[in-house]
Amino acid sequence: MTEIQRPSGRAADQLRPLTLQRGYTKHAEGSVLIAIGDTRVLCTASVEERVPGFLRGKGEGWITAEYGMLPRATHTRGGREAAQGKQGGRTLEIQRLIGRALRACVDRRALGERTITLDCDVLQADGGTRCAAITGAYVALVDAIRNLQQAGALKQSPVHGQIAAVSVGVYNGVPVLDLDYVEDSSCDTDMNVVMNDGGGFIELQGTAEGHAFRRDDLNSLLDLAQIGASALFQAQLAALES
Amino acid sequence: MTEIQRPSGRAADQLRPLTLQRGYTKHAEGSVLIAIGDTRVLCTASVEERVPGFLRGKGEGWITAEYGMLPRATHTRGGREAAQGKQGGRTLEIQRLIGRALRACVDRRALGERTITLDCDVLQADGGTRCAAITGAYVALVDAIRNLQQAGALKQSPVHGQIAAVSVGVYNGVPVLDLDYVEDSSCDTDMNVVMNDGGGFIELQGTAEGHAFRRDDLNSLLDLAQIGASALFQAQLAALES
Amino acid sequence: MTEIQRPSGRAADQLRPLTLQRGYTKHAEGSVLIAIGDTRVLCTASVEERVPGFLRGKGEGWITAEYGMLPRATHTRGGREAAQGKQGGRTLEIQRLIGRALRACVDRRALGERTITLDCDVLQADGGTRCAAITGAYVALVDAIRNLQQAGALKQSPVHGQIAAVSVGVYNGVPVLDLDYVEDSSCDTDMNVVMNDGGGFIELQGTAEGHAFRRDDLNSLLDLAQIGASALFQAQLAALES
Amino acid sequence: MTEIQRPSGRAADQLRPLTLQRGYTKHAEGSVLIAIGDTRVLCTASVEERVPGFLRGKGEGWITAEYGMLPRATHTRGGREAAQGKQGGRTLEIQRLIGRALRACVDRRALGERTITLDCDVLQADGGTRCAAITGAYVALVDAIRNLQQAGALKQSPVHGQIAAVSVGVYNGVPVLDLDYVEDSSCDTDMNVVMNDGGGFIELQGTAEGHAFRRDDLNSLLDLAQIGASALFQAQLAALES
Amino acid sequence: MTEIQRPSGRAADQLRPLTLQRGYTKHAEGSVLIAIGDTRVLCTASVEERVPGFLRGKGEGWITAEYGMLPRATHTRGGREAAQGKQGGRTLEIQRLIGRALRACVDRRALGERTITLDCDVLQADGGTRCAAITGAYVALVDAIRNLQQAGALKQSPVHGQIAAVSVGVYNGVPVLDLDYVEDSSCDTDMNVVMNDGGGFIELQGTAEGHAFRRDDLNSLLDLAQIGASALFQAQLAALES
Amino acid sequence: MTEIQRPSGRAADQLRPLTLQRGYTKHAEGSVLIAIGDTRVLCTASVEERVPGFLRGKGEGWITAEYGMLPRATHTRGGREAAQGKQGGRTLEIQRLIGRALRACVDRRALGERTITLDCDVLQADGGTRCAAITGAYVALVDAIRNLQQAGALKQSPVHGQIAAVSVGVYNGVPVLDLDYVEDSSCDTDMNVVMNDGGGFIELQGTAEGHAFRRDDLNSLLDLAQIGASALFQAQLAALES
Repeated sequence: MTEIQRPSGRAADQLRPLTLQRGYTKHAEGSVLIAIGDTRVLCTASVEERVPGFLRGKGEGWITAEYGMLPRATHTRGGREAAQGKQGGRTLEIQRLIGRALRACVDRRALGERTITLDCDVLQADGGTRCAAITGAYVALVDAIRNLQQAGALKQSPVHGQIAAVSVGVYNGVPVLDLDYVEDSSCDTDMNVVMNDGGGFIELQGTAEGHAFRRDDLNSLLDLAQIGASALFQAQLAALES
Repeated sequence: MTEIQRPSGRAADQLRPLTLQRGYTKHAEGSVLIAIGDTRVLCTASVEERVPGFLRGKGEGWITAEYGMLPRATHTRGGREAAQGKQGGRTLEIQRLIGRALRACVDRRALGERTITLDCDVLQADGGTRCAAITGAYVALVDAIRNLQQAGALKQSPVHGQIAAVSVGVYNGVPVLDLDYVEDSSCDTDMNVVMNDGGGFIELQGTAEGHAFRRDDLNSLLDLAQIGASALFQAQLAALES
Repeated sequence: MTEIQRPSGRAADQLRPLTLQRGYTKHAEGSVLIAIGDTRVLCTASVEERVPGFLRGKGEGWITAEYGMLPRATHTRGGREAAQGKQGGRTLEIQRLIGRALRACVDRRALGERTITLDCDVLQADGGTRCAAITGAYVALVDAIRNLQQAGALKQSPVHGQIAAVSVGVYNGVPVLDLDYVEDSSCDTDMNVVMNDGGGFIELQGTAEGHAFRRDDLNSLLDLAQIGASALFQAQLAALES
Repeated sequence: MTEIQRPSGRAADQLRPLTLQRGYTKHAEGSVLIAIGDTRVLCTASVEERVPGFLRGKGEGWITAEYGMLPRATHTRGGREAAQGKQGGRTLEIQRLIGRALRACVDRRALGERTITLDCDVLQADGGTRCAAITGAYVALVDAIRNLQQAGALKQSPVHGQIAAVSVGVYNGVPVLDLDYVEDSSCDTDMNVVMNDGGGFIELQGTAEGHAFRRDDLNSLLDLAQIGASALFQAQLAALES
Repeated sequence: MTEIQRPSGRAADQLRPLTLQRGYTKHAEGSVLIAIGDTRVLCTASVEERVPGFLRGKGEGWITAEYGMLPRATHTRGGREAAQGKQGGRTLEIQRLIGRALRACVDRRALGERTITLDCDVLQADGGTRCAAITGAYVALVDAIRNLQQAGALKQSPVHGQIAAVSVGVYNGVPVLDLDYVEDSSCDTDMNVVMNDGGGFIELQGTAEGHAFRRDDLNSLLDLAQIGASALFQAQLAALES
Repeated sequence: MTEIQRPSGRAADQLRPLTLQRGYTKHAEGSVLIAIGDTRVLCTASVEERVPGFLRGKGEGWITAEYGMLPRATHTRGGREAAQGKQGGRTLEIQRLIGRALRACVDRRALGERTITLDCDVLQADGGTRCAAITGAYVALVDAIRNLQQAGALKQSPVHGQIAAVSVGVYNGVPVLDLDYVEDSSCDTDMNVVMNDGGGFIELQGTAEGHAFRRDDLNSLLDLAQIGASALFQAQLAALES
């Protein structure tokens, strides 16, 4: 690994400090505050005993997600989407990603005709909010499923494996793991990687902000992503066992 | 004071446990998490060096507020206003109230041509969110002003006095202070009282949910509100001195 | 009562001239033009044989209200809310108030599964439009109920008692009844009081525009409100008997 | 003229009773209640000393119109457009027509850089609301211009000639003038004709609701429209002279 | 016919070159690209086996239309209505016209409980887009009906006769047929005429842009419209037989 | 390359037939119809001599994109976004992608303070519309730049290199190039790859629809993407030289 100076002083393959706080709020069936560095996202999982119209009567459940950012989660205040009367393109893109990612670990037939909505609200942003949302929402989802099991509504968990996400990027010419805001703002390439704990890729979204990236860049980035994802899976397990 | 059984076991004139956590998030000029019982509202104060069109060039500043509730802050999930494309009537009503309440303690000419926006986002709701928002937003506002003073942008604080709010109501025929959700759902009369620390009323909003209320009910409720407000003012001062 | 000069020359406890014109338009089940001073509000009551989703199958009816102001009801033209694509916060706040006020005098179970919508449209504004709307809507509501009785759809009226509303305020330091626009624009405290004819309070909304108000101010204002409400109840009865 | 039975008993070429009440509300520069049969439209003209962006700095004024219908102006309650969040296609179509019609009698250069907005709000509908709106708005427009002249803002009136509108149609096979709601609901052809007092056509909008119409139908309808328009011009003059 | 110079060199009663290309896209039941001069409109007819709520269970079908213009169909780029969040007044007016026009040739009871939606999207605009849309949509509609017949869903066509539309206007004082953009931008009177092949008028919309028009102008314009419509009917037949 | 049966009979590394038709419409500075298989997208480039607010006065230009799909571009009719009052999440996601992709080949400082908007409207969809949009928009962009050069507004082209996009996916267990609708609907992994002609990646978006994908799958897909992109670059050059 090339020697670099990251603004945070981290090694190139080092995640920021991570905590997953279960039961952060009391009403939701699953409620997790994920903090990774200074990024903090509240992820709640809400169970409802109905499905969207396109699934009615098909014997399948649904997993969906909504994402939001508090107006002053960021350096300068952003407009409140509710006041502006619509969710922006970035928001819609992210919440679609979160929903797809989590659906990838659920057997929707085994879930039965119910919907689990994952609300991911960013209380404080410092880069990597969508990855944090996915990683935290997984834990909230499992808690909601356990709730259903304890209530006798489900015998077995319809969740197979784990899902987590991490960002990687090329910063000052060097591939690094888990970009914070300062790195994200000036990196050449930015990639969000959603993985499962079997080592498979669920989603890959890479963007060249400056120079185009090449196959070997990509390979280095994916190596880092795998390192980061392993740590995230362990943290999820540890949180779920506590 | 009549003897009653409140669901929480509190005395009729007893507030719920209260904490005001300053610096809860790092980007905002003021950022306070107020917790009163199980109600938790994040109040941030954001300073911007511009004013709305109707004030441009008049040498006055502006104080405004926005209110939101995370979808799963409540017992059952509520629709996300950003996704629904508009803020509901209740939301607009509350944020107008918060803005009026806080403007009542600011000399807007002394503030100069800048806007302070108070974002009050409910992370967890258990009754009294609008009152908590006002009480917490006052502390966030003072922190934002102190920031301006430290930055040399203001010599003196344009804030005069303190503002806090508390709910009172008639529960099972008995006037009580600081309704929680269970009490709020079944009370006869519900009143939100915004006061200043000089003992004056800034705003009074009382609604008979069941039986109409009478002058003596009102007087009992206002006595309780004054007791509650005193405690809130002390808690604000304690937080601001810590 | 202190001697004051009101712009209109009225005594402090004097209402503006009031007329309630029933049958102002022909299609609605109840249709009343209320004129109080130069404020004129057309209140119609429309009966529909269905209820909102949340009441379906519960054997109860619903009373709701909508409020609007014609663009040139005011000194300068205001934007048309339909053209702007949404109702403003003030409008939503007022129509929620009107709905709550009128529901307070109706036994919704006795009404049966039907909805009565009270449309209150301000043709000309000179202060006190929300109070005029409530006072006029009550008469329109009673007419709509009488229609249902005459049609054999209801045996007895589900309306118990009367509802009226009046504004009071502190103008130039003196409490006065029924503020007109000139007074409203420069008063210290402005309070809208909804009462029933049993002398009970249904809703109290007081705002300190300038100085905070104190308990004795409040008491003076409520005394005035009771005087005003009595006159309004008599006018409603007279109109309904004509 | 063939003998027919109109539901109202009118002759085929007979207008409904017409009144034009000037100064109906007090704030607008022009304010006219037009009643034609049971149709009642409040037309206000508001003067503002600015023009839309596309005319800024061109030395021309603008005439525009907005149209609305109170929810219970009709037999059954219609949704309030402000609450629905948009103006319907019919509303937009009508207000565009009113604006075009009135612009046809104004020298916009002579008006100077100001906007006159004609708000036409239907208090009660019984057919022919758009024609009534145009006929009434003309009178409100002239009043607003006179106001400008009296205030010294204009030396001469920029209005040339008169504008009025009337509906004609084929009812039960016979051409008739000024359709009321009952006729309008079951007629074969419905035509709205906007004319000036020089006998010229400003706008012609004819729709075959049932059978297509032919040249001779059209000629009969236009003959009737001319008869109706003459009466409307006289009524406008009489109102403006009173 | 007076001698004039039209910008295009056409005779006063001469249509622009016209083509009707069936099967332009492959998914729709009917899909026609109409080109008239440089105006090009893609008209598709989509069949759905359901009707709007107001027709449910009445044994009738529905014909409706939607109109759109690609942002750069015009000389300068217009805003995309989807991005602006609403269809403009002109769009709504045109699509209502197209729908009414096409409904005039369909026996909706014979169609059965299904909806045919005519989407008319302007790829390139050079005047007369609404008339081209109607003329092209008629052919798409017939193709969709033939599809239903071939699929055995309908025995006989519910379409009776043909519908086409053409614009006429007074350009430089002379009545002309089928205005292109240059003529349309500077003509005195602009009239859209929808006819059926029996010589009847379905819709007539004439607007005096400059001078009012008179009965003899109108007669000349309608003569031209009839000439134009005949040519359009022939072109439709030829296209449908190819 | 493994032997497979693609529904279209194509080899695994075979693009669908491709045409790029320049000058498809006449008003836009660049206008290209791209057809790849049965997918047809009209890409126009519109030049405007202004930039969005956030770039004003910075001496840089802007490249942006909007994407739309005609309602019946697809097998079943989709709702018109303009009528629904908002662009869906998929639309916003795609148009953000197109904009980013094209900005990657433009020196925005050399472009000067002007905006080029790329409107990509899908006339017919059969898989791969976003990739077709990017590939076609590149050609439209170059045409618009040439227009600016011919008009003397630009001396040198600010475009460096070429941009194209292609989809790849795992269909029935085998990696294939350029998915059509049938393949897209049932593939395991779907990846959109935006490249430049230097062999660099601009954007990579891969989604596991069924099974997660692994590093070797990814490598096979990227090999195919490079084959496809080469063919697209040649087709762009050929079109631009014609």
